Amino acid sequence: MDKLIFSQEFHFPVQIYYEDTDFSGVVYHANFLRYFERAREEIIGAAELKQLWQEQQCGFAVYRCDMICHQGVEFADTLDVRSQVAMESQYRSVWKQAIWRQGANRPAVTATIEMVSLGPDRQLIPMPPQVLARLQQPCQG
Amino acid sequence: MDKLIFSQEFHFPVQIYYEDTDFSGVVYHANFLRYFERAREEIIGAAELKQLWQEQQCGFAVYRCDMICHQGVEFADTLDVRSQVAMESQYRSVWKQAIWRQGANRPAVTATIEMVSLGPDRQLIPMPPQVLARLQQPCQG
Amino acid sequence: MDKLIFSQEFHFPVQIYYEDTDFSGVVYHANFLRYFERAREEIIGAAELKQLWQEQQCGFAVYRCDMICHQGVEFADTLDVRSQVAMESQYRSVWKQAIWRQGANRPAVTATIEMVSLGPDRQLIPMPPQVLARLQQPCQG
Amino acid sequence: MDKLIFSQEFHFPVQIYYEDTDFSGVVYHANFLRYFERAREEIIGAAELKQLWQEQQCGFAVYRCDMICHQGVEFADTLDVRSQVAMESQYRSVWKQAIWRQGANRPAVTATIEMVSLGPDRQLIPMPPQVLARLQQPCQG
Repeated sequence: MDKLIFSQEFHFPVQIYYEDTDFSGVVYHANFLRYFERAREEIIGAAELKQLWQEQQCGFAVYRCDMICHQGVEFADTLDVRSQVAMESQYRSVWKQAIWRQGANRPAVTATIEMVSLGPDRQLIPMPPQVLARLQQPCQG
Repeated sequence: MDKLIFSQEFHFPVQIYYEDTDFSGVVYHANFLRYFERAREEIIGAAELKQLWQEQQCGFAVYRCDMICHQGVEFADTLDVRSQVAMESQYRSVWKQAIWRQGANRPAVTATIEMVSLGPDRQLIPMPPQVLARLQQPCQG
Repeated sequence: MDKLIFSQEFHFPVQIYYEDTDFSGVVYHANFLRYFERAREEIIGAAELKQLWQEQQCGFAVYRCDMICHQGVEFADTLDVRSQVAMESQYRSVWKQAIWRQGANRPAVTATIEMVSLGPDRQLIPMPPQVLARLQQPCQG
Repeated sequence: MDKLIFSQEFHFPVQIYYEDTDFSGVVYHANFLRYFERAREEIIGAAELKQLWQEQQCGFAVYRCDMICHQGVEFADTLDVRSQVAMESQYRSVWKQAIWRQGANRPAVTATIEMVSLGPDRQLIPMPPQVLARLQQPCQG
């Protein structure tokens, strides 16, 4: 994937609550995928996602995720989810995402996540142009 | 609700995994509602629920739940979810549900949960007859 | 509970993501308890909760919750969780909480939730004074 | 990882409930990691995991997971989670896990998951011998 051209980096904050942890005292690993997803939805836009679904029954699905948990994340942490995206084809986007704890000098969790665009019958469709435009916008905040 | 005629008691087992607990060492309270829901789905039948949704866009929604957590539930516990149901009207079922830890002499969690039947536009509809029949069947297992 | 003196109303925003919904198209009911909990943690303060746990093994547990779901909450909704709290005794706080969808003229979900303070052996303890002080502070934001 | 010697295949059933799906109509992707975890806990043994935690503050953490979602999993599905495990070192186990829908001729989800054993300070420790023994036992049921 070396030839992919990645977007600038988007930032998304996540606060860790009771519900995110398990009895071992740190965040349950599957939850990291939820934070990555929230960040992607924020970048694409929740209203856009809803409209695409309602008008065209078009959605997105995770095809692959490869995640490494370098360090535990704790209750009350405030996380910075950092995301960059590239189009691998018109059907598939590749996201490099990382979770940073406040004050850390390396990420706690890193992941490469591949998303596909799906139509009404869950068949592959090209990424809708309005979403493409969002992903190539300068980031805010 | 004294005049309601409740069904016999159904039993449903739940095993507690990492994902169910939080850092305080016990099950996160909102999860109890998930176990009660699983038990209700098992009683009504997952296949029946799916068919009702696909053919008639008919589903069920929790209207009210009143839950008391008497005691913490721990990792590795095997729970017995006990359920009784009564029809309050043709639109609404009332469920008395309780979570028992193995070997306990009183329930860890008790709840009264009211469910309504909803049609395609989320309007109230009478409980479908095949579901009514399931609820009045002798229980299995 | 008519004689309880409730605090001013705190506001807490919740964005609804894919993870919050189920196949019926609306938010899964148990998740509302998670949003209420997040709002309470924000009011008490995540850092304070962490410190109490680490230094005194003191925490909070939901003893009872009585929730009514008046209306479905949808994907991409931005919610306002409104909370008021009163002390019923030195051990127990009572929270009146409600979930408002944007632009609504009545809440989608309302709940009364009773919390108790627990010590290292999960025995009842008086609410720690620093938490009491937080709950009686003027709200921010 | 070609030289790793994998155990026989363990089977673990998972029933899909409302809570597992999202509004797109299929299982939310992060939940697959929960099913894989449940299967691993069942193989190692919940009681053993609890005892290790209470007596030695020893636990397990996911270090890496690489998951591919080939096909959507639907409400009311009954899944067969198939797992094989190999020791990569005394600290790290590698799990090949797959989710099969009933009647399918290929898995819906496949994953390679690396687990590490952690001691009281979340430092790497060798896999406890009683767990090693469990993983090398002939599987049941």
